Amino acid sequence: MKIEPRTLKGFRDFLPKEAKKRAYVLAILKKVFESYGFEPLETPALEYEEILAGKYGDEGDKLMYRFTDNGGRKVALRYDQTVPLARVVAQFQNELPMPFKRYQIQNVWRAENTQRGRYREFLQVDADIVGTYSPLADAEVVAITIKSLQALGFKNFKILINDRSVFAKLVDEGILKEDEMPKIIRAIDKIKKIGDEKVLEEIISEGFTKEKAKEILTKIKEQEKTDAIKDVAIYLETLNLNKDIFQFEPTLARGLDYYTGLIFEVEVEGYDIGSVAGGGRYDNLIGMFAGRDIPAVGFAFGFDRLIEAMETLNLFPDDLYTSKVFVAFANPELQEKALKIADQLRSKKINCEVFLEDASLEKQLKYADKKQIPFVVIVEENKLGLKNMEKRTQEELTLEQILKNLY
Amino acid sequence: MKIEPRTLKGFRDFLPKEAKKRAYVLAILKKVFESYGFEPLETPALEYEEILAGKYGDEGDKLMYRFTDNGGRKVALRYDQTVPLARVVAQFQNELPMPFKRYQIQNVWRAENTQRGRYREFLQVDADIVGTYSPLADAEVVAITIKSLQALGFKNFKILINDRSVFAKLVDEGILKEDEMPKIIRAIDKIKKIGDEKVLEEIISEGFTKEKAKEILTKIKEQEKTDAIKDVAIYLETLNLNKDIFQFEPTLARGLDYYTGLIFEVEVEGYDIGSVAGGGRYDNLIGMFAGRDIPAVGFAFGFDRLIEAMETLNLFPDDLYTSKVFVAFANPELQEKALKIADQLRSKKINCEVFLEDASLEKQLKYADKKQIPFVVIVEENKLGLKNMEKRTQEELTLEQILKNLY
Repeated sequence: MKIEPRTLKGFRDFLPKEAKKRAYVLAILKKVFESYGFEPLETPALEYEEILAGKYGDEGDKLMYRFTDNGGRKVALRYDQTVPLARVVAQFQNELPMPFKRYQIQNVWRAENTQRGRYREFLQVDADIVGTYSPLADAEVVAITIKSLQALGFKNFKILINDRSVFAKLVDEGILKEDEMPKIIRAIDKIKKIGDEKVLEEIISEGFTKEKAKEILTKIKEQEKTDAIKDVAIYLETLNLNKDIFQFEPTLARGLDYYTGLIFEVEVEGYDIGSVAGGGRYDNLIGMFAGRDIPAVGFAFGFDRLIEAMETLNLFPDDLYTSKVFVAFANPELQEKALKIADQLRSKKINCEVFLEDASLEKQLKYADKKQIPFVVIVEENKLGLKNMEKRTQEELTLEQILKNLY
Repeated sequence: MKIEPRTLKGFRDFLPKEAKKRAYVLAILKKVFESYGFEPLETPALEYEEILAGKYGDEGDKLMYRFTDNGGRKVALRYDQTVPLARVVAQFQNELPMPFKRYQIQNVWRAENTQRGRYREFLQVDADIVGTYSPLADAEVVAITIKSLQALGFKNFKILINDRSVFAKLVDEGILKEDEMPKIIRAIDKIKKIGDEKVLEEIISEGFTKEKAKEILTKIKEQEKTDAIKDVAIYLETLNLNKDIFQFEPTLARGLDYYTGLIFEVEVEGYDIGSVAGGGRYDNLIGMFAGRDIPAVGFAFGFDRLIEAMETLNLFPDDLYTSKVFVAFANPELQEKALKIADQLRSKKINCEVFLEDASLEKQLKYADKKQIPFVVIVEENKLGLKNMEKRTQEELTLEQILKNLY
């Protein structure tokens, strides 16, 4: 029986071209994270179901991949990286330095309805600081977000900042009841996408009168910067970050329920599909397995969106080739010579390759072209040529000159 | 209900110290692979079950993680990286350059009985050349194995080489029947572990007479280098690799059924738990979805064993820290100054961090020590000190001197 080669909906192969782009971005992000002392953490793809179940609301329980393993254990695939972090913090509390600054870059699985930009397997890029209430930690997380974007080549972007206590204040003032807050946050969260009018409609549909809805929205918009936001602003100035990058935005809500303090989101000019990164403080989540409050603040990149934004803004370098040089032989007798030249190039740290079969020069050049290798050394009987594949130029050179040219 | 924070048997968290070691090894391996023009490929964790089922024998079907997803699809977790490669080659045959040189570094899942060094989730590191019968491809794969080991710091190791046709020859000579060969290969495969006598016993237990078993073993040991081995040896000399590294070993069998030609394995002096890498030619596997023969040759590192071997032989550098410098403040008023100094260090590409809370110098130093940060800058009212945490020395320096010292 012939089996059709295909992948599951929402799951992707990354062929070399795509995989190299992803590796390029990750290498830059890791470098920035590590420059602030953040360290890598990895957790298993499979966890006991009880570790993950009930932690992501009804929606999460529905979208989680779960099954019973061969040993009869109920297991589930990683759904995010925050609950596993909470487990690790409880399990290894004596081994981890506190505050614990970790980044984690692994796939998660969610049985979402697939649509543009939504996948069932996707990479999460998280960085969090666990174990401190200090606003300096909030500021550092924002600073790293900015430094990461700058390192990737983003120039025109804004950090929208708000504080979840802005919403809590409405409760304190008697305008809202505590249990109404999540609904309001979910409605306000859409304001940028759907506008004021639709948000009002949504609030009304939650059982509020038109007047009440308007009062709520007006009140939210009138809020002023909280102390948390002011503190962060001071630290960010200390860290020499341009003030104009920040914008207090009292209607910023962030979808997730678990934020408790500062929240922020990135807005990139020229890419309005959605935010490429965001985060905030969540002080009631990480302690769930440890059985005590453990404060935390962190952020995540939407990795697929980040890649898409970089494509849109042309931020990928042209030279994401693997081999810089292809060493071609004019006839099969010269293959051995080509191999030796390739070896010399490698000893100078130049990635290169030789066609592994007897083949015509034409076939070899076609291969080099398909792999987007920028330079070809053509080995002939008594001379060497260096071909620039992009400029379509070629010159006769000695091996020494070639090495100098390529270095 | 309190949920116990724990991981499934055979699954591991990698805390920063361990994760950094793994990242160190992978960075070196990728660099070597790419220096020969190998490019990264990623495939999904989940595949349609029919893609994987029946490809790994009865054992594989038993150990595979499979389940039915929310949409009623039968799915399975990646069990190795070779079958997904075969799928990719069939699915994207027009897009891929041929020969296709790819490396793939992803987790696989097998519900093995857990025992020392056996896990249910483990990383595979594969590099393969698809689409050519050329012995030069075999030689390149062996060369990369050697270059990788050397780049990791291994000095005393051997590459044992054999050719599966050595076993086929016994069939040609009428000593064995075709269908008896896999049993013999599986028995011979254990010769290094259990010795000649036990291998003979095992062959006898498969239904052979004592005389026949002896004849088979003697015949195998008498085999001479095949043309494939000689070809590879010639190319390896061209590539300037030390001859003494290779050793023809006619009893080398390699467990897997699918090899068809050259096979090889690495033997590291001072680490005899098992081979850290091995590979060979397998010309009948990759074409399974394409419906035609597609030759291939490749190798894989046993990543967990590789890490273990490097630990045993002390090949990890001492300086796998993340932050090189911890900038400590003698009192809380100096935290801002410490932050600014950290920023200057970062602009010189020195990873560093500042304690994010008000804290005593003692507490800060404890944190630096726990994170194994090698240097501490101590910011005092009117001076700076540089502490070497390992040597336990400290000197008063200007910021400029510190930058020079650390660079």
